[in-house]
Amino acid sequence: MTQNAPNPKIRHALTVKRADDFAQWYQHVVSEGEMAEESGVRGCMVIKPWGYGIWERIQKLMDARIKEAGVDNCYFPLFIPLSYFSKEADHVEGFAKEMAVVTHHRLIGDGKGGLIPDPEAKLEEPLIVRPTSETVIGAAMSRWVQSWRDLPLMVNQWANVVRWEMRTRMFLRTSEFLWQEGHTAHADRNDAMTETLRALEMYREFAENVLAMPVVAGEKPENERFPGAVATYSIEAMMQDGKALQAGTSHYLGTGFAEAAGIRYQSKEGAQELAHTTSWGVSTRMIGGVIMTHGDDDGLRVPPAIAPHQIIILPMLREDDGDEALLAYCEEIRRELAKLSALGESVRVLLDKRAGKATQKRWAWVKKGAPIILEIGGRDAAGGMVSAVRRDRLWKDDGKVNFVGQTRDAFIAAAVSELESVQSSLHAEATQRRDANITTGITSLDALATFFAEDQRYPGWVELNWSRPTGAALEKVVEQLKALKLTIRNTALNAAPAEGQCPFTGEPAVERIYVARAY
Amino acid sequence: MTQNAPNPKIRHALTVKRADDFAQWYQHVVSEGEMAEESGVRGCMVIKPWGYGIWERIQKLMDARIKEAGVDNCYFPLFIPLSYFSKEADHVEGFAKEMAVVTHHRLIGDGKGGLIPDPEAKLEEPLIVRPTSETVIGAAMSRWVQSWRDLPLMVNQWANVVRWEMRTRMFLRTSEFLWQEGHTAHADRNDAMTETLRALEMYREFAENVLAMPVVAGEKPENERFPGAVATYSIEAMMQDGKALQAGTSHYLGTGFAEAAGIRYQSKEGAQELAHTTSWGVSTRMIGGVIMTHGDDDGLRVPPAIAPHQIIILPMLREDDGDEALLAYCEEIRRELAKLSALGESVRVLLDKRAGKATQKRWAWVKKGAPIILEIGGRDAAGGMVSAVRRDRLWKDDGKVNFVGQTRDAFIAAAVSELESVQSSLHAEATQRRDANITTGITSLDALATFFAEDQRYPGWVELNWSRPTGAALEKVVEQLKALKLTIRNTALNAAPAEGQCPFTGEPAVERIYVARAY
Repeated sequence: MTQNAPNPKIRHALTVKRADDFAQWYQHVVSEGEMAEESGVRGCMVIKPWGYGIWERIQKLMDARIKEAGVDNCYFPLFIPLSYFSKEADHVEGFAKEMAVVTHHRLIGDGKGGLIPDPEAKLEEPLIVRPTSETVIGAAMSRWVQSWRDLPLMVNQWANVVRWEMRTRMFLRTSEFLWQEGHTAHADRNDAMTETLRALEMYREFAENVLAMPVVAGEKPENERFPGAVATYSIEAMMQDGKALQAGTSHYLGTGFAEAAGIRYQSKEGAQELAHTTSWGVSTRMIGGVIMTHGDDDGLRVPPAIAPHQIIILPMLREDDGDEALLAYCEEIRRELAKLSALGESVRVLLDKRAGKATQKRWAWVKKGAPIILEIGGRDAAGGMVSAVRRDRLWKDDGKVNFVGQTRDAFIAAAVSELESVQSSLHAEATQRRDANITTGITSLDALATFFAEDQRYPGWVELNWSRPTGAALEKVVEQLKALKLTIRNTALNAAPAEGQCPFTGEPAVERIYVARAY
Repeated sequence: MTQNAPNPKIRHALTVKRADDFAQWYQHVVSEGEMAEESGVRGCMVIKPWGYGIWERIQKLMDARIKEAGVDNCYFPLFIPLSYFSKEADHVEGFAKEMAVVTHHRLIGDGKGGLIPDPEAKLEEPLIVRPTSETVIGAAMSRWVQSWRDLPLMVNQWANVVRWEMRTRMFLRTSEFLWQEGHTAHADRNDAMTETLRALEMYREFAENVLAMPVVAGEKPENERFPGAVATYSIEAMMQDGKALQAGTSHYLGTGFAEAAGIRYQSKEGAQELAHTTSWGVSTRMIGGVIMTHGDDDGLRVPPAIAPHQIIILPMLREDDGDEALLAYCEEIRRELAKLSALGESVRVLLDKRAGKATQKRWAWVKKGAPIILEIGGRDAAGGMVSAVRRDRLWKDDGKVNFVGQTRDAFIAAAVSELESVQSSLHAEATQRRDANITTGITSLDALATFFAEDQRYPGWVELNWSRPTGAALEKVVEQLKALKLTIRNTALNAAPAEGQCPFTGEPAVERIYVARAY
């Protein structure tokens, strides 16, 4: 992956650089940006205010899109009886079994000062902490759907889910995570596919416009389908280490789930028909994607659309008589900025009055990735001035922080366009990098192996033409790729027609796929 | 409790009346209003779109108040290691032990086509599904608090919690419920008490202004304190059956929790000090309170501030050529109404275009308690008219639905004040009923027993003057009241000075308490 040559004059805020150790850099950004931390509970994280604030922004803007599509929010139980999964296990081969199992409902003293699960309070049927809610929502839909008039039935929930993970990584893979899961039932395949693709397009548009994260929306290969799905679609984003991150999925489930749950309706003609169902979700994983798309060697860079605070005002307090006038001046600017509207919402501005040195506070906000930081001293206040720096243009070539002095009026007048420019610049930078790191023209498995074996640290993605093998032939391809630590990401919906031969089967290619290392 | 004489001409929408069987009436409102239903999972409910929409409104308006107070939202793990509770059990007598215990992290086949917890995947230490997050948040605070500069530390989370309940009731008492829990740490008692009372006042103001539900904010007696708390405060609302509902609590926890969790800070003077902590929460239980405060024999009545849709437009579709013009007319009205602002927010108006008879749809919205319903037919559209009914003025004396015909312009011009009038009328009605059903002047235990033994179905509350006994003396009072199925609710913060003798101890009274049956 192409990297800009480092400027030796710049002393970056983080001690680990992306180019040196991307995985460790990621951990530093998460902790130095005060996004999240280990909780002391295996595989579960504490999401701190700045990280949770970003999630709240994502929730708010995604929820508006979900509601706009006519989907109703509901809430379904955290626990799912074990028997529901037995049903699913029957008809789903790839059934994942790593789940948290509740077996008791009471604690008692162990006689040694400790507590143990009360043997008298063992549940007759164990309960599973939901890893996803298909089964319990399917059961509800079977009650709610009677006639064609009840369709489409479209519900969504914002919830925590648990999948027992052996190796966890904050935001990217945690045992408990937060997500939304949409579940819909339709009269026929056509309606259900339209909804599946609507949700996919909603995620694509959201990733591009809100997260400033370019993605490829496309169909996953057969082997990567959600167990039981007829078709699975994803949005895939390229991280700065060239790996792919699946940032959202949408599934057309056919009638299999409706059959298992008994979601049947009477058609206009009076016949009993099975519904066609879909499900789609995004999670706190998106935040990991934002970090690895936009972060730099000074920490996080948060796109203004999801920044809890877009503009930080840092008064350079001196703990003397001048502070009062300085704070009044800052408060006036805050008020003016808060009246403005950027990216379709009121500007979110924070006057950070906490005790502490302004430069320390500045670096904390740099590492958190606040889009614009203002520093204002007593002399600025007297002269009607401010100093402003954009997080995406942090450094001057001489290694100094790129603060631009200007009148407060000039800053306020330009604030909206500056915020919108940060948003579009982050998107443009990420798109350029993504496009520059997709390699085409590889036509053999050997060439593919050579490409990924080469001593380039972050090789990016390869676009291959293939024959879309299925069954055993596909399994062989998957094994061949696995040996190279590669996976098939998806086939872009808007891909150009295929060309040439499939490097795996030698047959004529029928579509293009992205092959990459992945999170 | 005083009840209006029923009007025999009115045929109410529900088959069960409040006066006949309040508990069954409650269940009917919940199911007929499509608020929630049994999930098939013991003690857990499915919250349906209308019920969840009300919760989303509560969340939005409460969250704004929490943020306004400078409290940061975070997210903490669902699971809490068993050992955290052992610590708490040590120093807390009233430690509740009914909790969901996770003991395994994998399922395997049982060889007979079913699934069982994998014996190989037994957790070394069981995990508890959080019943509340004091312990895990305390552990985080002990990491985050170092010096006086870190205080106050104020966090909140919106989360699901689980308390294993034997007898459940939708919204009022469910094994899983949704809530917010605020947790704060302060340098001294004074700051912590101020925060405890701020949260209480926030809840009181919210209940009155948003839920239109009058409450008494006050201190709980010693025996009703949160285990380990130094002082517990509550808001108490009177339901239409005269029972009390505790609708929110705020606790001053002293330094006990800080000691158990190790929340220590270095003071300005350099000494190591224990922090003083608080916690406060409200839950989906509030929705049960809204139902039992405002519901009537036609179903729910939702205060406009928390109604997902405030105005419903029902076109009387005839499935003929006239429908298009009728829908265009309705859409125009919808657009005009949506531009308005009532109770500080944009008016939420729904044009209900679904198939089905308008009268059926009307009664569905009546039972859901939408504040204002418009019915518009083809002739109305041609003449620029609408028919409107307020949910709080549903019937005419002659037993007809109280639809008022008027020009669309007149309706639109008055819509904001009508919505605000529904909000204030519901509050006034509930306040009047509450005040009329608090009995004073009872000065002996015998008189109290007689009062609650009398054949009045819904006796309301009794305000007693008492001597605030503690310890064993209090326990005796609690037992005496329990024999009458009564509990002490709280001592109002703004109560008048006490008078006379304590009916329990014979000593001079020092404060006034409310005594009532309770949920």
